[in-house]
Amino acid sequence: MPTPDSQSARVEVLEEMIKSGRLSDAAALIQTVHASDAAKTLTQLPSSIRGGILLALPTTAAADIMELLPDDVRARALEEMDPKQAASILSEMDWDEEVDLLQDVDPDQAEAIIQHLKEEEPELRTLMSYDEDTAGGLMTKEFIAISDKMTARETIRALREKADEYAEIPYTYLYATDEHGRLTGVISYRSLVLTSPDTPILSIAENHAISVSTSTKAAELTDLFKKHHFFALPVVDGERRLVGIVAHSDVLEFEREEAEEELLQVSGILRGEELRDMPLLLRSSRRFAWLSFKIVLNLITASVIALHQPTIAAFAALAVLLPVISDLGGSAGGQAAAVSIRELSLDRVRPRDVWKVWMKELGVGLLNGICLGLILGVMGWLYGRHMGGTGNALGYGALAAFAVAVNTLIAVTIGGLGPLILKRFGFDPAIAAMPILTTFTDFCGFFLVLGLAPMFIRYNAA
Amino acid sequence: MPTPDSQSARVEVLEEMIKSGRLSDAAALIQTVHASDAAKTLTQLPSSIRGGILLALPTTAAADIMELLPDDVRARALEEMDPKQAASILSEMDWDEEVDLLQDVDPDQAEAIIQHLKEEEPELRTLMSYDEDTAGGLMTKEFIAISDKMTARETIRALREKADEYAEIPYTYLYATDEHGRLTGVISYRSLVLTSPDTPILSIAENHAISVSTSTKAAELTDLFKKHHFFALPVVDGERRLVGIVAHSDVLEFEREEAEEELLQVSGILRGEELRDMPLLLRSSRRFAWLSFKIVLNLITASVIALHQPTIAAFAALAVLLPVISDLGGSAGGQAAAVSIRELSLDRVRPRDVWKVWMKELGVGLLNGICLGLILGVMGWLYGRHMGGTGNALGYGALAAFAVAVNTLIAVTIGGLGPLILKRFGFDPAIAAMPILTTFTDFCGFFLVLGLAPMFIRYNAA
Repeated sequence: MPTPDSQSARVEVLEEMIKSGRLSDAAALIQTVHASDAAKTLTQLPSSIRGGILLALPTTAAADIMELLPDDVRARALEEMDPKQAASILSEMDWDEEVDLLQDVDPDQAEAIIQHLKEEEPELRTLMSYDEDTAGGLMTKEFIAISDKMTARETIRALREKADEYAEIPYTYLYATDEHGRLTGVISYRSLVLTSPDTPILSIAENHAISVSTSTKAAELTDLFKKHHFFALPVVDGERRLVGIVAHSDVLEFEREEAEEELLQVSGILRGEELRDMPLLLRSSRRFAWLSFKIVLNLITASVIALHQPTIAAFAALAVLLPVISDLGGSAGGQAAAVSIRELSLDRVRPRDVWKVWMKELGVGLLNGICLGLILGVMGWLYGRHMGGTGNALGYGALAAFAVAVNTLIAVTIGGLGPLILKRFGFDPAIAAMPILTTFTDFCGFFLVLGLAPMFIRYNAA
Repeated sequence: MPTPDSQSARVEVLEEMIKSGRLSDAAALIQTVHASDAAKTLTQLPSSIRGGILLALPTTAAADIMELLPDDVRARALEEMDPKQAASILSEMDWDEEVDLLQDVDPDQAEAIIQHLKEEEPELRTLMSYDEDTAGGLMTKEFIAISDKMTARETIRALREKADEYAEIPYTYLYATDEHGRLTGVISYRSLVLTSPDTPILSIAENHAISVSTSTKAAELTDLFKKHHFFALPVVDGERRLVGIVAHSDVLEFEREEAEEELLQVSGILRGEELRDMPLLLRSSRRFAWLSFKIVLNLITASVIALHQPTIAAFAALAVLLPVISDLGGSAGGQAAAVSIRELSLDRVRPRDVWKVWMKELGVGLLNGICLGLILGVMGWLYGRHMGGTGNALGYGALAAFAVAVNTLIAVTIGGLGPLILKRFGFDPAIAAMPILTTFTDFCGFFLVLGLAPMFIRYNAA
């Protein structure tokens, strides 16, 4: 039996233990490694075994590991558990993690789990109602609020009295509130150390003016954190009552995950998450869902060629142009789409800025369309001459030039505006923009080459 | 004249002022808005005007704005300045920003600027020698080190004496060092507040065991920050002397930028940075550089079709298959490439893990290749029947099935392994992987369809 010092060896040993019913041995083994390593190991196990081990662990250990599992893996694990057991693990997690997780789980199971979280239920439902890209969705409920009537000395004394409780709260600021719970000032531990003991704490408040509401967008939070170098910002309700705090690191982490997911989604990895440790069938079926969607789109573009089959039979050199037009159109449009997707995520552009973006893209499209057209025109002409027939060579070159120039303009238009329009109608631009783009540019490109061929080339003579 | 309250109005007014030589008016106007808004406005100006305004500003204001400009814009601005003036702005910036910026600037100009930064020169050269994705490259030199022999009370007194100087340092921890500057403990302001005054500070040190070296990779830092919820980690040299600290938020921001750049690079935006506010010529020339590279690659794939032109002339229905094979191959390979690019960035896979990744990809490639083959085979057969000629219909379907199945296997292999091999040889996988992939899959796909057609189809009869 291999010693369980490496990931793959550990996976084997755990599978063996579970198969022979030694659940508590498996739980003991997993507890010998750090939660983040345990999470990596569990990710590699079949989901049936994973659930068994999580349930055999003490709930605090299970919660620690759960926080580090990939979103999809942990949602699946919760869905397969008894709601009551799932609730006992969840109740050990931080508020914000708990909410994130419940939002990923199948709604019926989420509801069943919430029923077992009686004490937290109302709070949980409020938190779950916030969008994940807002301060409400990103904030934590773990902060230290103090009365704004104290001096520095009184504050320090009050903090020492609750030292054990507060030691769990890792943030850098104290939040001063009035008797109605309204935020009146933010005090850093540092200024508390550096000030003299008799100073009223409100007079060392750093930034009592700056707070955000639960609906403040992540992009706006990023701007605020860029302007002011805070570790966290207080979140207040309509009456300026403190309801939570949002940490800079949580906003950055959210944005990093968004950007990572975008790369994968744009490349056809649904949900923007795949690790090669995940089970084969899950990976291949998700990838296949995307590929079969592409088959449907290919039916549309292939039909353009099918309709013009006699044209190709009469002048086969056109078939050489088709993939070139398709690739260049997809590339030019993909550049525009990527910039729009990114600018939307960064809130640098809004879905209604269609006109502004179009003007910016038309400039690039015209310049690059003309340049690409000139190059392809010359190359087409040379190829046509090589094939023989001077009249056709000129026409072939002109057709190539015209088709690629027009198709580049179409491509940057659809690539630039597609993401804005998709977002406006509630779709995720990162998933839908690229396939729609390539379908359009292929369709138009193939039509330009094949439909206009008779106007440029005398191929009956060929 | 429009009031300069919106970005575009402000841009116009500034251009007007500069043209009529009113530099100081322009500088005064730009100082009325926050640095981050000023940065947005300056990004939209032609680079000649931008440099003029930056130089007309007080150096501290120019430095604040410089920190918020896009990487490329600010590097260009520095390159166009007199090295001495550039140095005076740089000397107002944080160490880490200063180093980042100098690394982006043309090496000759960077050298000239460093010559004017005499006091900082040796330090700067050391910092510039670290890779940007290591603790050395991500760390800051701004931290508070205290003697580890003091009590809490003595520490607080020492801090108060330097309150003004330390107020500029926004971090959450104090670093205790021995008489040789070696790190002996990390103390949070919070524990300093919560402990009793006579406690020796080393006894409230949080994590004296955890520090990193200048060469620790960003991915490893992320793992550490995930395991321990610190705001920052101390960076030590070979003798455990404290040389800097690396903040969690700086690591997160670096990773966010990396992920954002990857999305744009994969889509053909060189350097991974484009904002539509940048000048038209810069945007279109960068995009064109990529497109002209794609033209070269298209020459390779188009030549496969050109060589088989007689085959297409004899059986034009093959032309319908080509773009479908090309698109599906590119999609299947793109999925694999995106996962590899991401796993490399996250350090979940190393360039030498070729075999492991290949095995994982072959599983997906086999399953999805067979499924795609079955679907395309049936569709090809139906299309062939529709076109008439039962014998050819079966052969056409079989060819489609075989070509797409084999091409899928090739695609996931190149897509999965390409990024690893590119990285191993020092190339950036995000830039190079996708075009190499599609060139390969198009080349193979077109060859499979056209080269094998005679074995599947009796088209002389057509």
